[in-house]
Amino acid sequence: MPNTIQGPLSSHRERKRARRRREIIRAALEAGREKGYHATTLDDIAGRLGIRKAALYHYFPDKDAILLACHRESLSELERIAGDSRAVEGPARRLSFLIREHVRIMTETLEGSPLAFEVTVLPAAARAEVIRGRDRFEGVLRGVVAEGIEGGEFRAVDPKVAVFAILGAVNWIARWYRPGGGGIQPAGLGDAFADYLLRGLARESGRARP
Amino acid sequence: MPNTIQGPLSSHRERKRARRRREIIRAALEAGREKGYHATTLDDIAGRLGIRKAALYHYFPDKDAILLACHRESLSELERIAGDSRAVEGPARRLSFLIREHVRIMTETLEGSPLAFEVTVLPAAARAEVIRGRDRFEGVLRGVVAEGIEGGEFRAVDPKVAVFAILGAVNWIARWYRPGGGGIQPAGLGDAFADYLLRGLARESGRARP
Repeated sequence: MPNTIQGPLSSHRERKRARRRREIIRAALEAGREKGYHATTLDDIAGRLGIRKAALYHYFPDKDAILLACHRESLSELERIAGDSRAVEGPARRLSFLIREHVRIMTETLEGSPLAFEVTVLPAAARAEVIRGRDRFEGVLRGVVAEGIEGGEFRAVDPKVAVFAILGAVNWIARWYRPGGGGIQPAGLGDAFADYLLRGLARESGRARP
Repeated sequence: MPNTIQGPLSSHRERKRARRRREIIRAALEAGREKGYHATTLDDIAGRLGIRKAALYHYFPDKDAILLACHRESLSELERIAGDSRAVEGPARRLSFLIREHVRIMTETLEGSPLAFEVTVLPAAARAEVIRGRDRFEGVLRGVVAEGIEGGEFRAVDPKVAVFAILGAVNWIARWYRPGGGGIQPAGLGDAFADYLLRGLARESGRARP
């Protein structure tokens, strides 16, 4: 019964392999944060893990493949929160959930690494995949904003412009956030961003503003 | 009287030189928007201007020098609007002015080019200069937000967090904006961003919001 034996064994190997890949991605994100993508070498990444560069090739053929894996990790997280958001009732609460979770992805999953900005360096097919994924998430946000406007919960803004502003605010975290820094804490940051960006959409509830 | 003759002559030459430098910067921004900084070559830039690559060396020693010039142009514009903003009365109107003008810089001066994202590739001294300039502008925005909170015009948010959100929203324009596209127009964009980002700071003027 080679299958029953091979099954658990190979799944153990696969888990180990997946764990190792995540460690490499994390090391690349850290290195990228400090030196930028182009200055980061495979030696830098291997050095952070205490392994030889040659060992990296068991997992990734080159640096661009690691970058693509970083993007895929971030995109699959965005897809997951987009799915989870369907259970949150009402556009205001749903948008708030999406902003807070997106902030969490930026600070935890991506550790504030600006690698997420590197799209143009990817080969055409990979670039198209990343852009499709980002477009899908953008579409989800636009849908929530449009729904809020339709239902009268949000002001009549251009959902496209509002979503560009929201995505900019959240993605820009990669430019200034440093994990473990004494300053702004990730949890509070998600709440603060959601609060600020939701209020800008809220309908006038009292007298006119200046 | 060699001075009176040389004066106008050399200032004519200087103007011509400055104009040529601006053309090169503009061509680099356009090329950078399409291909990314690293894929852009000096040949690409020269080709857009219909000149030989060798001619570029009269103005810039290398590609990094062009990138630094792009940053300096953008920073001097930011400094200019920070100065101009002092004449605008009241923190809400001043912040609105700064956001609208910053959007204009992103769409006109930088033509939505993501070159503005390239900081890590610069040599240390140039990088420090750019970061100092950006920090100064950030400080101006924080001051305006803090003043608005103190005067009761804005809610008691963390000025640091609010300014990161504002800068993110505006800087992110480089990631999606395409000049001359049929979509979002620059003028309307500045107003829409100022409106959205100001409202998120405005104090409750009526009954409490959800």
